[in-house]
Amino acid sequence: MGWRDGYIAVDWGTTNRRAYAVDRQGAVGREIRDGHGIMNVPAGGFEEAVAELRRQLGDQPMLLAGMIGSNRGWMEAPYVPCPADADAIAENILWIEPGRLGIVPGVSLAADREADVMRGEEVQAIGALRWLPPDTLICHPGTHSKWIVMRAGRIDHFRTLMTGELFALLKAHSILAPQLRDVPAPDASFDAGVAAGLAGEAPQAALFGVRARHLLGKGDANGASFASGLLIGADIRAGLSLGGNGPIGLVGRSDLRALYAAGLARAGRETIEIAGADAFLAGIGLLTERL
Amino acid sequence: MGWRDGYIAVDWGTTNRRAYAVDRQGAVGREIRDGHGIMNVPAGGFEEAVAELRRQLGDQPMLLAGMIGSNRGWMEAPYVPCPADADAIAENILWIEPGRLGIVPGVSLAADREADVMRGEEVQAIGALRWLPPDTLICHPGTHSKWIVMRAGRIDHFRTLMTGELFALLKAHSILAPQLRDVPAPDASFDAGVAAGLAGEAPQAALFGVRARHLLGKGDANGASFASGLLIGADIRAGLSLGGNGPIGLVGRSDLRALYAAGLARAGRETIEIAGADAFLAGIGLLTERL
Repeated sequence: MGWRDGYIAVDWGTTNRRAYAVDRQGAVGREIRDGHGIMNVPAGGFEEAVAELRRQLGDQPMLLAGMIGSNRGWMEAPYVPCPADADAIAENILWIEPGRLGIVPGVSLAADREADVMRGEEVQAIGALRWLPPDTLICHPGTHSKWIVMRAGRIDHFRTLMTGELFALLKAHSILAPQLRDVPAPDASFDAGVAAGLAGEAPQAALFGVRARHLLGKGDANGASFASGLLIGADIRAGLSLGGNGPIGLVGRSDLRALYAAGLARAGRETIEIAGADAFLAGIGLLTERL
Repeated sequence: MGWRDGYIAVDWGTTNRRAYAVDRQGAVGREIRDGHGIMNVPAGGFEEAVAELRRQLGDQPMLLAGMIGSNRGWMEAPYVPCPADADAIAENILWIEPGRLGIVPGVSLAADREADVMRGEEVQAIGALRWLPPDTLICHPGTHSKWIVMRAGRIDHFRTLMTGELFALLKAHSILAPQLRDVPAPDASFDAGVAAGLAGEAPQAALFGVRARHLLGKGDANGASFASGLLIGADIRAGLSLGGNGPIGLVGRSDLRALYAAGLARAGRETIEIAGADAFLAGIGLLTERL
């Protein structure tokens, strides 16, 4: 049974896992979303985890992408250097069972001090081109947001920002935590934060205002919105500096897309939104066509 | 016994406390440095803590400054609004025992969205003027660094940055933690970080490079130095935007002064360094002259 007869695509992250059974028409049948990210699989447990997925989704060939191929995952799949396209990524799949079970490599950028890596977003980036022109700037928000410059359908270069992780650290551990309890929303506080971030203000300079305004009885309606807006505004400013003036391909989770779309609108930029799962499935589809 | 006969000055912070017995010549006699910051004093325990200080340092009048006057301290001493000088601060001391035991108020800034507060640094700022011209930009590095614009000897306005706290969060809880184990030093990695921060790069954009370079075998000699330099460079950029072109009064702990002095030199600025304890004692001295 080859890839044309259907396959299983797994987006295997640090904390979460999504597995899709794809049929011979390319349609998704059963789908599993669970918390069996690489950190939640016991040492030596990946073989059994894959067998279990096959029992549930069908005994088919399987591609795994994301942190599963990192040095903290199952086996380390060496990075493919930029510029990278679907051909280069498919050629460098790390085969665990030849032609039956492979790990998609990440993509790296290595130039002087500019060094960067991605694992998982490369599949979504090539897949997103189904809905985007071959020369596009893609924004992929997340714990580590990625801004990816696509040129002629290839991942030309990219940049990672610790935007989501910083927000999570502030929310969980900082002196601002009591003011960051709400869920950020694209409201007026968010807009004020975005404006400050887009203006080039280092977030650390405006963040303390969340606490100071609270202490002075002038608190934000939603402090989390302001802080999120500030970090996202700074993220967008850095991302847009990678160039281009067309619509931004905004790929990822719907809640984060809503925030980034609001921020990008504030920056005067159009967006084409693509659900992360759709981009992922399209990307894995492109890879299987090459197998 | 009045203030002219000697007094006790206490810099009472969140986690640490420093108490100094000052004699009638203004010289410091015994000094206590301990971990009895406000978070480490049991509820209702401040009266006894003060009595204990008097047993050790002498039964003298006493001024307490810092977070002891916050809503998490002993009693809340309302902020004095900017612009504020030694007169305004002395007039607004919160007396617990009239004329014998007082809490120095913090200083606030409240203008539109610009809101800020300080507690403790105001004493060091007015005290630092013993060594600085009356119109000076003061940099006070710390968990929450403060840049303070002094005009005609008054605290005119100021800005707080969460620089030290962000670094601590990254070191303790982030994905970069394994690369941030060393103590930051003003080395080549630090200098590269400062250059990126001064250039206006949002720290979240360059921070991930610490991890990416490590994964690609091009790691910084000292990742902590790079990350610290990046945050301090961004801090200095924001601080210098408050204006002025004279030497910067650099007030605080010697280890942080060394890092900021290196960063400010990179930005082409001269510094006049003043130990935080010296500035604090000079500031308390100015207040007692008004009592």
